[in-house]
Formats: sequence, C-alpha cells, structure tokens
Amino acid sequence: MRQVSVAGVGLSEWGEVWRASIRDLFVDAAMNAIKNAGVDHIDSMYVGCMSGGLFVGQEHLGPLMADYLGVRGVPAVRVESACASGGMAFRQAFIEVASGMSDIVLAGGVEKMTDCSGDDATYALATAADQEYEVFHGATFPGLYAMMAHAHMAKYGTTREMLSAIAVKNHKNGAKNPVAQYPFEVTAEQVGSSVMIADPLRVLDCSPLTDGGAAVIVTTPEIAKKLGKPYINVLASAVATDSIALAQRDDFTSIKAATLASQRALKMANMTIEQIQFAELHDCFTIAELILLESIGKYPAGKAGAAILAGQTSLEGSFPTNPSGGLKSKGHPVGATGVAQIIELYKQLTGQAENGRQIPKSPKVGMAQNMGGSGASSVVHIMEVGR
Amino acid sequence: MRQVSVAGVGLSEWGEVWRASIRDLFVDAAMNAIKNAGVDHIDSMYVGCMSGGLFVGQEHLGPLMADYLGVRGVPAVRVESACASGGMAFRQAFIEVASGMSDIVLAGGVEKMTDCSGDDATYALATAADQEYEVFHGATFPGLYAMMAHAHMAKYGTTREMLSAIAVKNHKNGAKNPVAQYPFEVTAEQVGSSVMIADPLRVLDCSPLTDGGAAVIVTTPEIAKKLGKPYINVLASAVATDSIALAQRDDFTSIKAATLASQRALKMANMTIEQIQFAELHDCFTIAELILLESIGKYPAGKAGAAILAGQTSLEGSFPTNPSGGLKSKGHPVGATGVAQIIELYKQLTGQAENGRQIPKSPKVGMAQNMGGSGASSVVHIMEVGR
Repeated sequence: MRQVSVAGVGLSEWGEVWRASIRDLFVDAAMNAIKNAGVDHIDSMYVGCMSGGLFVGQEHLGPLMADYLGVRGVPAVRVESACASGGMAFRQAFIEVASGMSDIVLAGGVEKMTDCSGDDATYALATAADQEYEVFHGATFPGLYAMMAHAHMAKYGTTREMLSAIAVKNHKNGAKNPVAQYPFEVTAEQVGSSVMIADPLRVLDCSPLTDGGAAVIVTTPEIAKKLGKPYINVLASAVATDSIALAQRDDFTSIKAATLASQRALKMANMTIEQIQFAELHDCFTIAELILLESIGKYPAGKAGAAILAGQTSLEGSFPTNPSGGLKSKGHPVGATGVAQIIELYKQLTGQAENGRQIPKSPKVGMAQNMGGSGASSVVHIMEVGR
Repeated sequence: MRQVSVAGVGLSEWGEVWRASIRDLFVDAAMNAIKNAGVDHIDSMYVGCMSGGLFVGQEHLGPLMADYLGVRGVPAVRVESACASGGMAFRQAFIEVASGMSDIVLAGGVEKMTDCSGDDATYALATAADQEYEVFHGATFPGLYAMMAHAHMAKYGTTREMLSAIAVKNHKNGAKNPVAQYPFEVTAEQVGSSVMIADPLRVLDCSPLTDGGAAVIVTTPEIAKKLGKPYINVLASAVATDSIALAQRDDFTSIKAATLASQRALKMANMTIEQIQFAELHDCFTIAELILLESIGKYPAGKAGAAILAGQTSLEGSFPTNPSGGLKSKGHPVGATGVAQIIELYKQLTGQAENGRQIPKSPKVGMAQNMGGSGASSVVHIMEVGR
C-alpha cells in the first residue's frame, strides 16, 4: 500500500442553511477543498451521506455531485454508514489512493437535514437503528443513548456534572470555530436545567440537526509536497462493526466497535493510545464522548468522568478532545461529520486552527473517531503532520 | 495494485419473496457465496443497496448485514449508486483487495422492493433521477427511457420489432435460469401488444420490481488457487459519470457514462471491444440494452437493432448479451443487480451456467456493465477465466 496524505480541506456554511440545497452544500465544501489544496483536477470522488433519500428525496449522489462540481465523467460514488458515512467515505478515498488506482481523490460528506419536519428528521435518523427490533417499537436515538447513560451512571456512578462538563467544554471550543452552528458558551447550570429530551439527556446534551458539507483532498505525500501546502499523513484507517440493536450487546456502558476500531488503528500505526495527543470523538450526545474516551482505551472504564471534571480533555489539558467544538456545538450534518473531524485534525496538526482554538502544545499526532447509530459501526483514523 | 479474483458466488431466492426480509435476502446470498468459495472467514464486506431507507426504512446496512451474517465486528459498509450500487460495491471490494489492505472481501448487493406499494416503489426508484429538475415535475424512469427510445427511433429508424426482439431473447435465456423471477418465454407479438407504460415502452419492455440478494467472494488469485475451486480474474474495473438529468445531456441516443466506463475498462485491460466475447448489460428497459450495445462500442450508432434481429446477441450468436436473462427476465433488485451480473460472468467463464444456458463457444473473457438512473453512473468490469 502507498502512503496517503491529506493536502487540502474545505467546509460549506453549517447550520440551518435555507439558501442552499444538498448539492450546493457539497459543492461549496468541495470547491473550498480543491482551492485550498491547489489541485487542478481530481481523479475520483466519494460522497458520504446518510440518507439523501429520506431527508431530501435524492439518492444517486455520486454523479449528481460530480456534475454540479463541474467534473462530469469523473468516477463518483456514495458511501453510507449512517452518521459514520463521512469517515467511511474518507476511508474509501484512502484505500483508492493507497492501492495506486488514483492519485488525487476528493472525499466529501454532506447532509441536508432541515428541509424536512422534525418528526421526519427523527424518523430518518432512526433508520440507523434496527428498524425491525428498535424503530418499529418506537425507539429513537435520544432514547437509546439515554439507556446507555443510565447504565453508565448505575455501574460507575457517572453524574450529571460530568455530562454537563462535556457540553460546557465543547461549546467553549465551538465558540472559537467560525463554522460552528452554535458558537456560544454554555454553563453547567444551563445544561443541567435545559429541557429534558430522554432522561437523563437534556437538550444541551444532544447534537443538533444541521445542514452542511465537508471535503478533503486525498493524495500521495509526493504530490502533497509538490503542491507546496501544509499536509498531514494517514497513519492508520480502521473500521469495526457491532450489533445494530442495542439489546443484542453484552454491555451498554462501552462501545465495542469503537474499541475494536481504535485497537486496529493503533496496531496499523504501530502506536499506543498514549502516543495520541488529541482526538475528535463522535459526541452525538454528551454521554457518547464520555463512553468513547473509555472505549478507545484512553481512560479505564468508569474513569473518564473524573478526568473530564479535572479538565484533562480541555484545549489546555493532557488529552484535548473535540477542539472543533464537536458535534455538540459545531453541528452534526450526519454525512459530513466524519470528514469534518479529519478537517479539524488537519487544522490542529498544521497549526491553522482559528480564533485561539489551536491546541497550545502543537500536537503532531491525532485521532478521529466517527460512528454510526448507537455505535454499530465505527471508523478510526490516525493522522500525523507531514514533514 | 495486486491481482484480484472472484472465487465463489451466491444468490438468494429472487422474485416477490414474501417470506424474507432485506437482511434474510442478503444473508442467504452471502452464505451461499461463502460456502461456494469454501472460505473460513472474511476480512471485510461491502453492501450495495440503492435505498434501504425508502424501500424498508433501514439505512446503516453494513453493520446490520455483518451482524446477521454472523461476522459481527468485521468492517462493513454500504455503497450506493442507484441501480449501479451492486457493481460499485464489487468495485470497492476489488480496490480493497488490490490495495493489499484485505485478502478476502465479500461484495454483496441487495434490495427488498415489494414490501412497499407500487407508488412508493416508483417514487423510491425516481430518487435516482434529478429530484429538483426531473422527479419534482413528475418524471419517472419509464418516461425517461421512453424519451430515449423515441429519440433513437427518430434518429436511426429503430423499430418496435427490435425492442421486442430484446425481450424475446432475454426471456428465452431467463427461462433457463433457476433464479429468474419470470422464467418463461415471450413472443414478439406478446411484447408488442402488452400494456403500454410510457409510449413506446410496454410492460414487457420493462424490468420488474424484485426482492433479491447477490454476493461474491473477492480475493487474490493465490488464495483462489488454494481454495481449489474455479475462479475468474478481474482484468479491469472502471466507472464514469454523466449529468444526472437527461435534459442536460448533448444526446439522448447514447449513454456517455457507459461509453467512458467501457473505454476506461478496455484501456485498463489492454484490450479492444472485439476481444470481449459476451456481456451482461444493464437492460432495465429493452431500449437500454440496444443503446448500450452501441455505447460500449460493440456496434456503430444505429446499427445494434439490425444485429439483434439477426440473432447476433443470442446465446449462439457472435456476441451473446445477457445470457442470464438480464434484468428483464431474471429480475432487477436494484442494489443486487450489479453483483448478479458478475455472478453470471463467473458461471459462464467457469462453464457452470445451468440448464443449457451455457454459451456454446465457452467464452474466456466477458464484460459486465451496470448503471444507475438514466445512465448518470456506469461501472464496467472485464473478467477472464482463471488459469
């Protein structure tokens, strides 16, 4: 396999973007990535999207996006793994460049979520769960993650304060992120008294519905060097799956697919978790970030909460987590999120994070962990600054 | 890139399969492929599916299928390109093995289409067209292909007899295919007097709604040899895209993405179209097969019709086309079709086609052409019998 790099990144506007359709969002992000990298063509492209069909009545996004990007003819295909669609699209671009089949591949993700009603969006998202054993019976994601939160609280004494601290920290980071949908700070008191969604999760424990696109240029280190721009290298790409239905798992208090995927990625990079200097983790709910810090092996089971309260996951801490603001503050256009995580790694590793969001210790190695559903699929990438 | 082979194939039951859910269909096909190849594990898997969301309210098919297949944990992701989803899933498996990332990858496709109403299925399929410029205004696929048929008739004098001959030939082949949804012969008179759907296309010009799954084992020639079963090698894999909306093309009488993809595939295989001994072409409508015979470069524009009437595309002809019975007779579970085409290539190239469906000249090289929508995406594979 060839070495693979990321040589340019781009985001669309994120939020409730009424002026833009799904194709506009993707094309905005892709054009920004192409300009940022300074490439004069792409050989191929991937589009991560969870449910163009249910959100906007549009499947077949590969050729649609290639056409509207102005590269009609170029190979283009959509990749889907619910909220991990973006990370998976990036992985397919990585494999294509690693194989030698293509030299310059655009990996993008997009979701247009606010054109349908809240009920319809909740239904569309729920199709990432088990339709026959969960969705049909009324389960939606806030409820599934609430069960995980209760189980974690019961087993390890995890508290409301710990969950609130995650929202406070992510909003503090997101307030410095120009693309963030909710770029404001919140207090622990505001989180703990916000509207209850599914006990114990309150609205400020939940990531929002977001319209947005994200794209990166995936290429070889040789080409990245020639482009003369900062770049990062992909040290590892790994995926793991688990049962799609929560009821079929041994344990609600860890996310096994994240454990497996991070172990596989660390093995591929020939590293230990101690060598990872920061991470973007899939905080679709505050409890998800807490469990993930344990599931990727950074903290022992039941110990992440105390570390969070001690500030270890803040920008200045020993293991900055979600410097972008995470899904919580930055927003969560589900198909784009995994690509946006790679973009934050790119910015942090090349020293380009905006508005004082740069991690002070100038990290050289970071991890992005993206997942689908209640953790049935997880994709982990480890990236290092190019030299 | 490493050499890549197909070492085993499997299909589920095809048709209106009321007893089986989408997960049953996929698992049946995958288990058959695994048994057929004799592999004791898979490293990774791909699921081609057009619209699990709209047909059965289920996205996130990668982990769902891995779980129900009994390989929880294994990397699994869905690939979508409308009716080309199966061919694209196969291509991603090809790239993954070629890259050296994995040695044994399952490439499958599935669609469960008959659980929703005919109107809902027509809407779901229409999301492969341009929602904003075609679907919203009432266009569905029979209408789009009818426009292509009228344009071809007007430009080249293509006749009803030529279209009917395609249906007659495909049903003749399909009658010998144990999996075919409609395994019976039809006459030209029956086709020409069947119910009008969208002038000039009648119901016997159209492929049906089908439930079905298909899967193959993708590996290296070295492993294929060790398994001791017949295998075929992938000589080329190529994709091309075009505008998703028909109105934005220069010409309705050819399918440019099929032309580009077949040219790219022939270049990759270092071959000319004359060296291809037979083909599975994406005959979603009879007119599609006729146009494709021209678009892949087998016949000059306007000349395929006469060749079809002369029997050149029959099993005994100089260029057997759709020996499986094609989408027309075999059925068209849209996400599975591209993988099923590869399976027919495997059967014909290894001399295992059932019930007298074997091409008499025992071909050594074949082409599979799969496409999405009205041809906005096309994926072409060239395969050769393993030696």
